[in-house]
Amino acid sequence: DFLHALENDIKPAFGTSADMLEHFMSHGIISWGIAVQHIMEDAMLFIRQARSPTSKGVVTVLLEGPPNSGKTAIAAHLAKNSEFPFIKICSPEDMVGFTEAAKVQVIRKLFDDAYRSQLSCIVVDNIERLLEYTSVGPRFSNVVLQALLVLLKKEPPKGRKLLVLATSSRRDVLEQMDMLNAFTTTLRVPNISSSAEIVTVLRETSVFNEQQCRDVEKKLADRRAHIGIRKLLAVVEMCREVPERDRVIKFICRLEEDGHVELM
Amino acid sequence: DFLHALENDIKPAFGTSADMLEHFMSHGIISWGIAVQHIMEDAMLFIRQARSPTSKGVVTVLLEGPPNSGKTAIAAHLAKNSEFPFIKICSPEDMVGFTEAAKVQVIRKLFDDAYRSQLSCIVVDNIERLLEYTSVGPRFSNVVLQALLVLLKKEPPKGRKLLVLATSSRRDVLEQMDMLNAFTTTLRVPNISSSAEIVTVLRETSVFNEQQCRDVEKKLADRRAHIGIRKLLAVVEMCREVPERDRVIKFICRLEEDGHVELM
Amino acid sequence: DFLHALENDIKPAFGTSADMLEHFMSHGIISWGIAVQHIMEDAMLFIRQARSPTSKGVVTVLLEGPPNSGKTAIAAHLAKNSEFPFIKICSPEDMVGFTEAAKVQVIRKLFDDAYRSQLSCIVVDNIERLLEYTSVGPRFSNVVLQALLVLLKKEPPKGRKLLVLATSSRRDVLEQMDMLNAFTTTLRVPNISSSAEIVTVLRETSVFNEQQCRDVEKKLADRRAHIGIRKLLAVVEMCREVPERDRVIKFICRLEEDGHVELM
Amino acid sequence: DFLHALENDIKPAFGTSADMLEHFMSHGIISWGIAVQHIMEDAMLFIRQARSPTSKGVVTVLLEGPPNSGKTAIAAHLAKNSEFPFIKICSPEDMVGFTEAAKVQVIRKLFDDAYRSQLSCIVVDNIERLLEYTSVGPRFSNVVLQALLVLLKKEPPKGRKLLVLATSSRRDVLEQMDMLNAFTTTLRVPNISSSAEIVTVLRETSVFNEQQCRDVEKKLADRRAHIGIRKLLAVVEMCREVPERDRVIKFICRLEEDGHVELM
Amino acid sequence: DFLHALENDIKPAFGTSADMLEHFMSHGIISWGIAVQHIMEDAMLFIRQARSPTSKGVVTVLLEGPPNSGKTAIAAHLAKNSEFPFIKICSPEDMVGFTEAAKVQVIRKLFDDAYRSQLSCIVVDNIERLLEYTSVGPRFSNVVLQALLVLLKKEPPKGRKLLVLATSSRRDVLEQMDMLNAFTTTLRVPNISSSAEIVTVLRETSVFNEQQCRDVEKKLADRRAHIGIRKLLAVVEMCREVPERDRVIKFICRLEEDGHVELM
Amino acid sequence: DFLHALENDIKPAFGTSADMLEHFMSHGIISWGIAVQHIMEDAMLFIRQARSPTSKGVVTVLLEGPPNSGKTAIAAHLAKNSEFPFIKICSPEDMVGFTEAAKVQVIRKLFDDAYRSQLSCIVVDNIERLLEYTSVGPRFSNVVLQALLVLLKKEPPKGRKLLVLATSSRRDVLEQMDMLNAFTTTLRVPNISSSAEIVTVLRETSVFNEQQCRDVEKKLADRRAHIGIRKLLAVVEMCREVPERDRVIKFICRLEEDGHVELM
Ligand SMILES: Nc1ncnc2c1ncn2[C@@H]1O[C@H](COP(=O)(O)OP(=O)(O)OP(=O)(O)O)[C@@H](O)[C@H]1O
Ligand SMILES: Nc1ncnc2c1ncn2[C@@H]1O[C@H](COP(=O)(O)OP(=O)(O)OP(=O)(O)O)[C@@H](O)[C@H]1O
Ligand SMILES: Nc1ncnc2c1ncn2[C@@H]1O[C@H](COP(=O)(O)OP(=O)(O)OP(=O)(O)O)[C@@H](O)[C@H]1O
Ligand SMILES: Nc1ncnc2c1ncn2[C@@H]1O[C@H](COP(=O)(O)OP(=O)(O)OP(=O)(O)O)[C@@H](O)[C@H]1O
Ligand SMILES: Nc1ncnc2c1ncn2[C@@H]1O[C@H](COP(=O)(O)OP(=O)(O)OP(=O)(O)O)[C@@H](O)[C@H]1O
Ligand SMILES: Nc1ncnc2c1ncn2[C@@H]1O[C@H](COP(=O)(O)OP(=O)(O)OP(=O)(O)O)[C@@H](O)[C@H]1O
Ligand SMILES: [Mg+2]
Ligand SMILES: [Mg+2]
Ligand SMILES: [Mg+2]
Ligand SMILES: [Mg+2]
Ligand SMILES: [Mg+2]
Ligand SMILES: [Mg+2]
Repeated sequence: DFLHALENDIKPAFGTSADMLEHFMSHGIISWGIAVQHIMEDAMLFIRQARSPTSKGVVTVLLEGPPNSGKTAIAAHLAKNSEFPFIKICSPEDMVGFTEAAKVQVIRKLFDDAYRSQLSCIVVDNIERLLEYTSVGPRFSNVVLQALLVLLKKEPPKGRKLLVLATSSRRDVLEQMDMLNAFTTTLRVPNISSSAEIVTVLRETSVFNEQQCRDVEKKLADRRAHIGIRKLLAVVEMCREVPERDRVIKFICRLEEDGHVELM
Repeated sequence: DFLHALENDIKPAFGTSADMLEHFMSHGIISWGIAVQHIMEDAMLFIRQARSPTSKGVVTVLLEGPPNSGKTAIAAHLAKNSEFPFIKICSPEDMVGFTEAAKVQVIRKLFDDAYRSQLSCIVVDNIERLLEYTSVGPRFSNVVLQALLVLLKKEPPKGRKLLVLATSSRRDVLEQMDMLNAFTTTLRVPNISSSAEIVTVLRETSVFNEQQCRDVEKKLADRRAHIGIRKLLAVVEMCREVPERDRVIKFICRLEEDGHVELM
Repeated sequence: DFLHALENDIKPAFGTSADMLEHFMSHGIISWGIAVQHIMEDAMLFIRQARSPTSKGVVTVLLEGPPNSGKTAIAAHLAKNSEFPFIKICSPEDMVGFTEAAKVQVIRKLFDDAYRSQLSCIVVDNIERLLEYTSVGPRFSNVVLQALLVLLKKEPPKGRKLLVLATSSRRDVLEQMDMLNAFTTTLRVPNISSSAEIVTVLRETSVFNEQQCRDVEKKLADRRAHIGIRKLLAVVEMCREVPERDRVIKFICRLEEDGHVELM
Repeated sequence: DFLHALENDIKPAFGTSADMLEHFMSHGIISWGIAVQHIMEDAMLFIRQARSPTSKGVVTVLLEGPPNSGKTAIAAHLAKNSEFPFIKICSPEDMVGFTEAAKVQVIRKLFDDAYRSQLSCIVVDNIERLLEYTSVGPRFSNVVLQALLVLLKKEPPKGRKLLVLATSSRRDVLEQMDMLNAFTTTLRVPNISSSAEIVTVLRETSVFNEQQCRDVEKKLADRRAHIGIRKLLAVVEMCREVPERDRVIKFICRLEEDGHVELM
Repeated sequence: DFLHALENDIKPAFGTSADMLEHFMSHGIISWGIAVQHIMEDAMLFIRQARSPTSKGVVTVLLEGPPNSGKTAIAAHLAKNSEFPFIKICSPEDMVGFTEAAKVQVIRKLFDDAYRSQLSCIVVDNIERLLEYTSVGPRFSNVVLQALLVLLKKEPPKGRKLLVLATSSRRDVLEQMDMLNAFTTTLRVPNISSSAEIVTVLRETSVFNEQQCRDVEKKLADRRAHIGIRKLLAVVEMCREVPERDRVIKFICRLEEDGHVELM
Repeated sequence: DFLHALENDIKPAFGTSADMLEHFMSHGIISWGIAVQHIMEDAMLFIRQARSPTSKGVVTVLLEGPPNSGKTAIAAHLAKNSEFPFIKICSPEDMVGFTEAAKVQVIRKLFDDAYRSQLSCIVVDNIERLLEYTSVGPRFSNVVLQALLVLLKKEPPKGRKLLVLATSSRRDVLEQMDMLNAFTTTLRVPNISSSAEIVTVLRETSVFNEQQCRDVEKKLADRRAHIGIRKLLAVVEMCREVPERDRVIKFICRLEEDGHVELM
């Protein structure tokens, strides 16, 4: 009845798993550079392997990169494109304030449910948050850690296949905890790092017109940048509130102030 | 029924949310300098963005500065001026002696309620106190920390908007705990730092007459000062008890003794 | 019903709050030096401010000094002289063996009750003991600490006034815990430090006759002393058991042995 | 009834103990080198001793080696070949999210059941995971550790015989915890370390044809390798998805990228 | 009903408090040297003060010294000789396996009971054991520590008098824990340190005859010794099992082997 | 009813205490050298003292030595030979998975039962395991430690006698925990350290014939050895599985490989 309570407590926030996946990629996936394509290709290869009738067992992929680089959105996108019949997302957002024991029960149930399906995909989002990790101490939930260490390596029952897509911005912590060993492969999700990539994103939004885009390009030309796609989209959105003619200058200033582009 | 108990336990201390906001700015907002104006303008920009129909999701603003600098009052003032229909304040004053679990439930409920409203504003006051942080150890509630780390980044359901105004005097601690990353922006609330600003405050109170104000100005001229608005108002109030003719000298002495102005 | 149990458990040890205050100043207040007067004057100024109809909110005074210097007795004396209608003392003596949670409930209830009265005075005695502080570890109750940090700064409801008189012999610990910031002011209660002050105390007791007092004065002349009033009174009391003619010599010896006066 | 609950909770995932043993050696045992043979021979010697009617008591064998080297599969294989009538496996996979107390109860029950049988074999898989060990802290379950330290040395009742096959990839941790002393013997399960051994494995799979096997052999000739059999089989399986003609090159690349063979 | 349970659990092991005091001085008090007399005299002085009608409040005496030096027996002896109507002993022997909370309840009840009597004496035996202190960690019960720190300083209600006799062999630990400050006085119970003192003890027992006593004296003459009275009595007792003629030599050997006397 | 549950849980594994003692000395006691005799003699002396009608109170003997040196078997042997009417063994084997509190209750009950008998003997086996000690941390049960520290020194009621035989292979840990002080005496159980002693053991077993024994003697002559009797017996037993003619060489090899004898 504890699990029963859990299930009642986590009211289904989403009608379908498609809705749920959309929630985690609210701004879509903008193809801002070659890096994005490579991640997609590599990941699809592992997904194909997981689907293939000759393969067996579990394939686990870790998407890791700096905060705001788009890890969760990419994981959701891949899960959606996998077209697996069973897709579940294991997100800290659904477990705020849960005890460690409750978290482990939820995680365990997710995997148990997946083992019952022929072809399952689980997105394990934001591992360091699931682990309640903080570097002060450091503190974390060893109970959740141990559960993940076991479940990520556990073979599904004969004939069942499982694809796990996990995200984390603390590769260093996972390494220290012997968790990297538990993944079949690790894909890096990088920050945007060139003015060309930035302008590619701008062109995909309706905030800057073509002239403004070219202005930005000129102003940023050859300057090194590093900004997560999520942050970049937030800055763009804020610029929408700025009068047309101040927009380009405000945009550049903001990037400079927050240290996202080199000062001239 | 636990939440039920919680709700009964926290008897509504205030009739309306306006009353409640007033409680946290009991001495009003005195415009003692340019810094105050800048904070107000910047903050209003983020509030407008949060309100704007084209924007989406959550905007989170951190007001940080030294103790007594007026962070809480400014947050309350901004929340009031936002004119959002749903305004709630999440304050450690209402959770004295709560268990960590109870605190998280209260915080979580606040956000859940906010998600149900179209346009919501939550004031998260005194984060280091919510976290029960003390540098001896150090000790803090990791449960509350993890809840805030997740909730500050969580997107509201489609079509809902959330503005979070948070305050803290321990920016260093929040940084160490990876919490700064979770905010859209950070605004610094400074101490009063010049004699001109001090006299501006004096003129707003009825304790010193014009002549006395000029006396204070002369005596403090060119001396560096650093005092929070809250502390300054307390010193002024104490001076009210002092006989008229000793008031100026007592005022200066007190500031010097407590190290708020440079000695001559 | 937990609070109910608490209230039943703490059987009213004292009929009236006057009785209770007397308990904490069992040897009265001897005016042994100028320092005593200064503390009294300064403290009364804050008490007047707290009473004054134009003032508002909370005034918190910390009495800090070495062990046995008379902090608790002075706090009780001030509370009594404040003539506030509501006076309560929050003392570790009444909470031996309470859980941290129970302690916080008691403390919180005390403040809640005070907020219901127009003009209230709370004595928070021996803060390091309330915090269950020990330097081995160090260990202390973070739950109690956080409650005090919040309650000492919390404004009473509109129109209510609160005076808090707190005592501690571990100023260093309170500073480390950011608690000094929470007080309106801090008054130091010193040890007795001269032979003249010692003899002033002797004259107030019936143990030594005038000749003996002069003998002591001569013997201690110009030697540096440091002894808490409480310890001094204990030594005097023990001398009562000593035969008349050995009394002076025994008294001096005891002070020397325990290191309270410099050796000749 | 707690144990009752436990037993109901751990639904028999496997019909027979043979099924169960198969689960842990899903890719069979490939005889990739002399090391495999030696382990098998040595282990069988201890198994014979445990079976022999003249011997008495308990024989405990630790299989230790790097992650993915095949420890669990070998333990399962040995247990199966022992043909003991009572075979049980004590695996962290069956105890995800169990409390420390529950884990110990399960472990204790396993041994108690074994003592009731004439001739029993227990596989204790992945000791560091049973101990919930992580080097961050470090943290582990002392309760489980103490139970194992006692049970591994405890003599079965008169006339009963017990064989324990344990696995671990953290020999260093077990040594630190005084657990190595508790084993009758320790056998090392090594990684594959030569190109010849790698090709032996390739020949056992249907992914590479003879020509490709020889190509691989030539390309890896004389380069030092170190890869666990489990990882090697996973790389091979992935190559199945790669078009025939790219397979060899992809295989070599993958080994190089993951650092399993020296770069040329 | 918890206290009720406690009281039922601690079945009165002794009919009268005299029986109980005897239990802690099973070998009587041998006056082996001048040190014993001095302790007795000093202690009796404090007991007289505690009894005297003009005195008031609480007198607390700490008996501290090396293990086995006779602290507990002396405390029991003093308590008996005080002839106070209410005498209770607070001993770790009666609280084996109690939780910290239960211990504090027992201690608190003891003091509460004492406050109800006109003239009470409490023996607090073996403080470091009551505190569950061990230097590994270090670990101890802060709950018990805080209770003792408060109770040792608490004034009894008006007109009641309390004498506390405490023992400890870890003065260093009590100092670190600020507990020494809580005592009115501290008396040191030393080890036996000369051959003359040893022979005084021998003469009080029936194990060695006069000739043997003189033999021992000669053999130990001028050699430095340090042995607790309890240990010495144990060695003597063991010698009773040794044949008459070997007794002296065995006695000397044993003292030398255990390092209680200097080697010749 | 908790103790009731405990008693039901610990089903009497042995019909009589003699059976139980046999369990802990399953290979008997081989008199492999002079050291064994000395321990036996010394120990019997203390047992006689404990039995003697003139003695009083408690005698506690610690048997300490390296792992596998035969401490437990010797303790069981001594207990059996003491012919005390009440003999109980307090062994970690009977308390696997018990909580600290349960362990203490069992230990306390054992002593309480003993106090009710005229003449009792308690074997406290493997103290470091009862304490759940591990050097990682270090961690241990302070609750059990404190109980033992008190019970080992507690005098039985008047007229009752108690003999405690304890074993430990961590003398260093007991010393650190102030436990050595609690014993009347300490006896060291050494490892076998010469080839002569090894051959004495071989002669007592039926595995090697006289010729083989002499062969071993020659091969080991003058080489330093250090091996616990338990380990030695295990090696001998394994040799039983080896064909006659390889037996001697295998025996020597094994001793060398495990570092029990110096290499030639
Ligand atoms: N190419 C892209 N890759 C990823 N996200 C993209 C891309 N293009 C647009 N987005 C949008 O950017 C946002 C990425 O945010 P997301 O939460 O996935 O980042 P994150 O790296 O998971 O952040 P965090 O470190 O906080 O977990 C999403 O709203 C997504 O719709
Ligand atoms: N310009 C101003 N900004 C902020 N507060 C002001 C200003 N003018 C007057 N005040 C008054 O000063 C007080 C500021 O106190 P407040 O509690 O907000 O400070 P704080 O920085 O939050 O303190 P703490 O560090 O304890 O949280 C309030 O009573 C407020 O009404
Ligand atoms: N001038 C004085 N100031 C304070 N106490 C005085 C004075 N004259 C006499 N006394 C008496 O001295 C005693 C002071 O003891 P008190 O408990 O107040 O000291 P304390 O500093 O609080 O000790 P602790 O450090 O243990 O808390 C009281 O009995 C009080 O009646
Ligand atoms: N010679 C072999 N030895 C062991 N395993 C083999 C061998 N040949 C093939 N295998 C297969 O390789 C895999 C070895 O995986 P296994 O889980 O036993 O490794 P492990 O060392 O226990 O890993 P971990 O370190 O994660 O516990 C199994 O699927 C097994 O069937
Ligand atoms: N002069 C003496 N002083 C104290 N004890 C004495 C003296 N003469 C004989 N004895 C006996 O010596 C024993 C002293 O043991 P006791 O338990 O008091 O020592 P202890 O210092 O309390 O030991 P521990 O350090 O273990 O607490 C008692 O049996 C007591 O009867
Ligand atoms: N002289 C002897 N002394 C002790 N044990 C002997 C002797 N001769 C034969 N034995 C046998 O050797 C074994 C000794 O094992 P035992 O468990 O007593 O060792 P231990 O030192 O207690 O080990 P541990 O360090 O694991 O507690 C027993 O089976 C016992 O019957
Ligand atoms: Mg993410
Ligand atoms: Mg504030
Ligand atoms: Mg005080
Ligand atoms: Mg394994
Ligand atoms: Mg004692
Ligand atoms: Mg043993």
